[in-house]
Amino acid sequence: MGALREREARVIVGDAIERNARLYPREPAVISGGRRITHAVFAERVRRLVQALHDRGVAHQARVAILAQNCGEYLEVYGAGELGGFIVATVNYRLAPPEMAFVLGDSGATVLVFEAAYAAVVAQLRPQLPQIRHYLCVGDGPGWAEPYETVLAEAEPGPPAPRASADDGVYLIYTSGSTGRPKGVLLGQTGAIATARIVCEDESLQQDDRLLLVMPLYHVGAKCAQLGQLWRGGTIVILPAFDPETVLATIERERVTTILLAPVMVRAIVECPTLGRFDVSSLRTIVYSAAPMPERLLRRAVAVFGPIFMQHYGMTESGPMGTSLLRHQHVLDGSPEKVRRLSSAGQVSPTYQVRVVDEHDADCPQGVPGEVLLRGPGLMLRYWNDPDATAEAMRGGWLHTGDVGVLDDEQFLFLVDRKKDLIVSGGENIYPREVEVALQLHTSVLEAAVIGVPDERWGESVKAIVVLRDGAAATVDELIAHTRRHIAGYKKPRSIEFTESLPKLPNGKVDKTKLREAVTATAVAR
Amino acid sequence: MGALREREARVIVGDAIERNARLYPREPAVISGGRRITHAVFAERVRRLVQALHDRGVAHQARVAILAQNCGEYLEVYGAGELGGFIVATVNYRLAPPEMAFVLGDSGATVLVFEAAYAAVVAQLRPQLPQIRHYLCVGDGPGWAEPYETVLAEAEPGPPAPRASADDGVYLIYTSGSTGRPKGVLLGQTGAIATARIVCEDESLQQDDRLLLVMPLYHVGAKCAQLGQLWRGGTIVILPAFDPETVLATIERERVTTILLAPVMVRAIVECPTLGRFDVSSLRTIVYSAAPMPERLLRRAVAVFGPIFMQHYGMTESGPMGTSLLRHQHVLDGSPEKVRRLSSAGQVSPTYQVRVVDEHDADCPQGVPGEVLLRGPGLMLRYWNDPDATAEAMRGGWLHTGDVGVLDDEQFLFLVDRKKDLIVSGGENIYPREVEVALQLHTSVLEAAVIGVPDERWGESVKAIVVLRDGAAATVDELIAHTRRHIAGYKKPRSIEFTESLPKLPNGKVDKTKLREAVTATAVAR
Repeated sequence: MGALREREARVIVGDAIERNARLYPREPAVISGGRRITHAVFAERVRRLVQALHDRGVAHQARVAILAQNCGEYLEVYGAGELGGFIVATVNYRLAPPEMAFVLGDSGATVLVFEAAYAAVVAQLRPQLPQIRHYLCVGDGPGWAEPYETVLAEAEPGPPAPRASADDGVYLIYTSGSTGRPKGVLLGQTGAIATARIVCEDESLQQDDRLLLVMPLYHVGAKCAQLGQLWRGGTIVILPAFDPETVLATIERERVTTILLAPVMVRAIVECPTLGRFDVSSLRTIVYSAAPMPERLLRRAVAVFGPIFMQHYGMTESGPMGTSLLRHQHVLDGSPEKVRRLSSAGQVSPTYQVRVVDEHDADCPQGVPGEVLLRGPGLMLRYWNDPDATAEAMRGGWLHTGDVGVLDDEQFLFLVDRKKDLIVSGGENIYPREVEVALQLHTSVLEAAVIGVPDERWGESVKAIVVLRDGAAATVDELIAHTRRHIAGYKKPRSIEFTESLPKLPNGKVDKTKLREAVTATAVAR
Repeated sequence: MGALREREARVIVGDAIERNARLYPREPAVISGGRRITHAVFAERVRRLVQALHDRGVAHQARVAILAQNCGEYLEVYGAGELGGFIVATVNYRLAPPEMAFVLGDSGATVLVFEAAYAAVVAQLRPQLPQIRHYLCVGDGPGWAEPYETVLAEAEPGPPAPRASADDGVYLIYTSGSTGRPKGVLLGQTGAIATARIVCEDESLQQDDRLLLVMPLYHVGAKCAQLGQLWRGGTIVILPAFDPETVLATIERERVTTILLAPVMVRAIVECPTLGRFDVSSLRTIVYSAAPMPERLLRRAVAVFGPIFMQHYGMTESGPMGTSLLRHQHVLDGSPEKVRRLSSAGQVSPTYQVRVVDEHDADCPQGVPGEVLLRGPGLMLRYWNDPDATAEAMRGGWLHTGDVGVLDDEQFLFLVDRKKDLIVSGGENIYPREVEVALQLHTSVLEAAVIGVPDERWGESVKAIVVLRDGAAATVDELIAHTRRHIAGYKKPRSIEFTESLPKLPNGKVDKTKLREAVTATAVAR
C-alpha cells in the first residue's frame, strides 16, 4: 500500500477548503463586517481568485503579497495560496514604509493585494517596486489598481486550474530580524496541515466552533488559529482591530466559542467596565500566546470566563507550534508543583519534540537551563533568501530557538530568558538591533543601545541609551520622531537616555547585561 | 526539509507509549481489575515484554497471538507490537475451537499469550499448532506455559531493543469471512496513527479523558478507541465483560469520560432498573458503532446522558474509520432534514474520502444508491495470505466495502443495505456463509441457506432454512448443537425452518431476496 501513503502525502491545505464546501455548504465560513459567507461561497471565491491570478500569468509558487487589516478577503488570499500553489507573503500594516518596501522587495512578490485604506502608502512605494505587476485593491481604490471584486467576478474558474502540491511553500511571513532587517520565514503545505491538526487536538475543535480573529492575520499565530478551524470546518468571525467592548459584544452576538488573545488583551477585557453586561457563556477556549499570563491576571480571568485558558509557545519558525499548556493544566488550586506550572509554557505538542541543550547541542541534565530546540512536522521550510541563516537555525535538524529554558521532571518547559535581546511588547516581537540601526541613521548619533524594560501594561517597553557625536545635539522627541520614519511605531523607543559611553564586552560589543543593571539601578535610585 | 518529512514518517504508535511515560509518568494509563498502572509503569512493562519476546528469538514482524478477555495485559501485548515491531494477532474468545485453530494457524503465530481461563481450550488445540513455540499464560496457568509475570520480571530491557518501523504491520485482526472462513486484516503503523488522530479529533479527546473499554479488544472498534487515548495520554479503564450495572458503577467510581458501546448495550443501560442511582455526569462522549441507533432509543439515552452521542461507521478493513455522525449532528429537535440524519452514518472523517459508485465503479449521481467506497490513510495494508482478495477489495486504490449507501446533498451517508448477506447481531458480524458451511457438515443436510431476520433485542438474529437429504432426519436442536461445535455460539442459528427446496437464481445460487420475502410472508401469515 505504498501507493496509499503516496496519496495521503498529496493532501494540501486547500483540500480542506473544498471539503468544507462539500460537507458544510450552507454553514458560515467567514463572518466579517456584517457579511456572512458560507463555505460553498468561500470556496467559490477562492477558486475564482486562483483562476484570476493564473489568468494574469502568476506562476506556481510566485509570491502574492497582502497588505490589509483582518478581513474576509485576507482569508481568500491565503486560500488562493493554499489551493492554487502561490506563496502568500503578508505585510505587517504597522511597519514603516521603508520596512514595507523591504518586505515586498525581498519576497519578490509580483502581486500585491491591499486594502483601500493603504492606497496612499502603496502609491508612495510603487516606484520602488518594479517587480510588482498586479495591484488588486479591496474596496474603493485608485485607478492604477484592479478592483478585487471585479477581478473575482470576471474570473471563470474551471479545469485545468492550477493546484498546490504537498511539497509547496504556502506562507511567507516576516518576523523581526535579529540582524536589523525583517526576516522571511517560509512555511509549507505539509507543515500547515500538521499545525492545523495540533490546533484541533489541543483545542478540541469541532465543526460547530466559531473563532473570533482579532489578532492580526499577518502574524503566524492568528493564521494558525484559523488553520485549525479551516481543517475542521468551523466559522471565522473577523474583527479588524482590538477593542475590548467590541470583542465582548461580538462574542455575545456570534456565540463565539474560541478566541486567541495576547495577555495584554485579556487584561483589557477583564478590566472593561461594561464586562458584566455581556453573555460570554458560549466561549469554550481562550488561547493566549507569546508570553505566560501573570498569575493574578489569570485568576481574575478564570473567575470571569471559567477554566478555559490554554497557552501555546512557539514562533514563526516553528510553524508556530512547540509546547502547550492545556486547559486542564491551568491548575489554580492544587499542589504547589501544579500551580507552579502556570508559569511554564506547558509540554511538547503532539508530533513535536523539545530538547534543552548546552552550547555544544548536548542535552542538559533535567533541571539545568539551556537553549530550547524544537523539532516537528510544522517547522519552517527555510528562511527566505538566506540559506546561511537557515543552516545555522536548523543545524542537526532541530530548530534553535535562541530561547533559554529548563524542563522539569514531567517535561514542562519553563522559559528562563527570551531570545537574546528580544523585546516582547504588547505581543509584538521587537529586535533591539532594528531600533539601534534606525537611531544610528540620525546624523547626531554616535552609538545607540536598546533594551526592554518592564512595563506594567505592555509587558516590556523599548528603551534606548544613546551616545551623541562630539559637539552634536538632539532631543529625545527629535530622535523618537526620526526612528518613526524608519521603523513601525510600536518599535520606536518609549524612552531615551543620553550617556557618555556604553559599557562594552571584551569583543567590543555592548554589554547589555551591565546596561540593564545600570538602568535598573538608576530607576531604583530615583 | 525533505529530511524533516522523513523523520515525521518514522513516527510509530509505540512513540506514544514512550511520550506518555515522559510527559505523564504518574498519571494512570490502565485501570483494570483493581490494579492501577501509571504511564511510566505501563511503558516499562511493554519494554520488558518486547525484550522478553526478542530474547526468545521472536523476530521483527513475527506474529504474537493473544487469546484473552479485556485486561491490562492485552494492552501490553498490543504495546509490544506497537513499540517492538511484532504483529499482534487477536483471537476472538467466542470462537469455537476449530475457528481458533484456523486463526492461529493462518496467522502463523509463533507466540500465544492467553488468559488462564482459556488454558483448557489451548491445551486441546496445541497438537494442531506446531508452529507456536512459546506459550505465555496470564494468571495461574499450566506447566507447559511460561507465567506472563515471570517473563516480564526476568526481562532486562535495554538497548539495543528491537523497534517497530513506520512501514510495519502491527495488528492482524480476523473478521468473519464471506467465504466461510475468518479473514485476517493487516493494519499498519502509519494507519494506526491516522486512526488515533481521527478518534482524538472527532471525540475532542484530551489528556484527562478516561475511556471505559467494555467492547472486546479483539475487535478493531475497541482497539481504535484505545488508540485515541494512547495518542493523547489518557486513561483506559477496563472491564472484561458487559454488565449494565457494573458499567454504571465503574463510570461513577472512575469518573469515566468516554465509552464505546454497541446500540444493544446502550439499550441495556437505559433499561437498567438501578440507572438512577449512579452519577454519570463525568461522561463527555458515548460512541456507538456498527449500526445506527433506533431514534426512540437515542431519545431515551439523550434524556439520561445528554447530547453526547457520536457514531462511527467503518469496518476492520477501513482501519476502521470512514464516516462519523458527530455530537452536534445528533439533532433531536430541528428541521426534518436534520432529524432525518440521525439515521445516517454521518459524514466522511478528516483525511478520508467516500464515494458511492455503480457496478463499473463510476460515481452515482447524488441521491442514487450504490456501493460505498472508502479511501484514507488508515485502510488495511492487505488481507493476510490472500493477495487476490486484497486486489479485489482495493481495486483502483479504494476499499470496496460491499455496503450499499446513498449520499445526500451535504454528503451525509445513508446505508441502504449492509454488506451483501452480512448479519449484524448484537454488534458482531456474522457471514451466512460460515453458518451454511457448518450446517452442511451435518450428514443429514443437503442444502442450507442462512439469513438475518429482524430482532428487537439484537438488531438481527440468525435464521437457517434447511433442505434435508432424501430419507434423512434431523431435529432443530440437533442441528443447532451441531453448528455450535464448528462455529462461535453467537453465530449459531436461533431458528431453523425445514423446506423441500430453496429458491434459486439463474446462476444456480440461492435467491436470498426471495427467501427473505418467503420467510417474512410466513411470519406475517402466522
